[in-house]
Amino acid sequence: MKSSPHIIYGKHASLAAISNPMRKIKRVLLTKNTRDEIGEKAFSKVKNIQLVEGKKLDDMLPREAVHQGIAVECDALLAPSLTEYLSENNEKNVVVLDQVSDPHNVGAILRSAAAFDVGAVIVTDRNAPAESGVMAKSASGALEIVPLIAVGNLSQAIEILKKAGYWIYGLDGEAKQIISQVKFGKKTALVLGAEGRGLRRLTSERCDALVRLPIAEKMESLNVSNAAAIALYELYRQNIIS
Amino acid sequence: MKSSPHIIYGKHASLAAISNPMRKIKRVLLTKNTRDEIGEKAFSKVKNIQLVEGKKLDDMLPREAVHQGIAVECDALLAPSLTEYLSENNEKNVVVLDQVSDPHNVGAILRSAAAFDVGAVIVTDRNAPAESGVMAKSASGALEIVPLIAVGNLSQAIEILKKAGYWIYGLDGEAKQIISQVKFGKKTALVLGAEGRGLRRLTSERCDALVRLPIAEKMESLNVSNAAAIALYELYRQNIIS
Repeated sequence: MKSSPHIIYGKHASLAAISNPMRKIKRVLLTKNTRDEIGEKAFSKVKNIQLVEGKKLDDMLPREAVHQGIAVECDALLAPSLTEYLSENNEKNVVVLDQVSDPHNVGAILRSAAAFDVGAVIVTDRNAPAESGVMAKSASGALEIVPLIAVGNLSQAIEILKKAGYWIYGLDGEAKQIISQVKFGKKTALVLGAEGRGLRRLTSERCDALVRLPIAEKMESLNVSNAAAIALYELYRQNIIS
Repeated sequence: MKSSPHIIYGKHASLAAISNPMRKIKRVLLTKNTRDEIGEKAFSKVKNIQLVEGKKLDDMLPREAVHQGIAVECDALLAPSLTEYLSENNEKNVVVLDQVSDPHNVGAILRSAAAFDVGAVIVTDRNAPAESGVMAKSASGALEIVPLIAVGNLSQAIEILKKAGYWIYGLDGEAKQIISQVKFGKKTALVLGAEGRGLRRLTSERCDALVRLPIAEKMESLNVSNAAAIALYELYRQNIIS
């Protein structure tokens, strides 16, 4: 991700950004109500705070943005490269997204990733959204916890993960194995494709195994962030029990 | 749900509405491209079809609607009352939503409910969204499969479910029991609250037991539709294995 400025909004996402020492904050805009509700202490390290009317936030943000009276102007985070990440983190599971393009979905997947202790979410630098306010809002603070690593070539990234000892599972509605019947080890990479199209053939072929969620025949698929949440829960559950 | 007219859009949602014999279709608007892609056969039972330009659909639908070249004017479905539903369906799990107000979330929960063979989703007629295009799009066809039952009073509805033999589990981040350690029987009612506020105290007190998802401490909660998907998967998984 390039370090371009953007605006994060919403209480959870904004407070997480403010308390992240790696996040360069330019300005915090907030309403008096929101400041009183959150308390001034949360903003003690912010140099540039402006009290504004809610309407000012309405005007500067996308129409559908639920800002809850707070917006943070900041730089996007500088995520490590995949190689840098792997040199420092060796045990946690990772998620690989194959052309999941909706920032709401990527944000929600980051949130589930943080909740189920995933180390990183890997996306392609084309066909995947860059960090944004919409993504940060859906991630509800998780953007500050789980690095979003952009790679040029997903097949190459999968090979790098394999060499680093990861076992690569692709989620595919046509797979024979049901996810709950697989015994996952440590260092699992879970690969998810876009809704509808699913995994691209080349991506699918790079996986060590394909697994599917057990769903009733009357439905073709789940929303991709729901599918991710379930798969990450299953990994986490096995880890807790074993 | 009152039988008020509205517009469903998007391929999955529209085709599901058209093939639902209980759905009263007034008019189908579609682009030539979408008709050619789907094939005329899918529309053989529709009396009023109009070929239109994509722009006409853009203009008549909310700005953010991804219509994929198709919109269906129809009446909302007439859902059964809870008592009617229970007199005809005795075994399937149900979901109860306590003031989940975002139609995207309710739609996504309907989709997961259909995928994991849930019999009905129960909402309050105040504080819950009525059937809409946004909900139908998120439900991706599930609105035609899983009845969305509106009740006046959620506590009373829970009592009715108990009398019908349901065991009531509330999902609550503060609960002691982890969901994967509970052995769910048949006829489970899963109660979910709004994000942030969670279950209302009165709702919580009516539950037979409270359970939580096992998530890392660094995250407070999951998106409500993701939480629902995971919980419904867990019920379904136990059912498959046992």
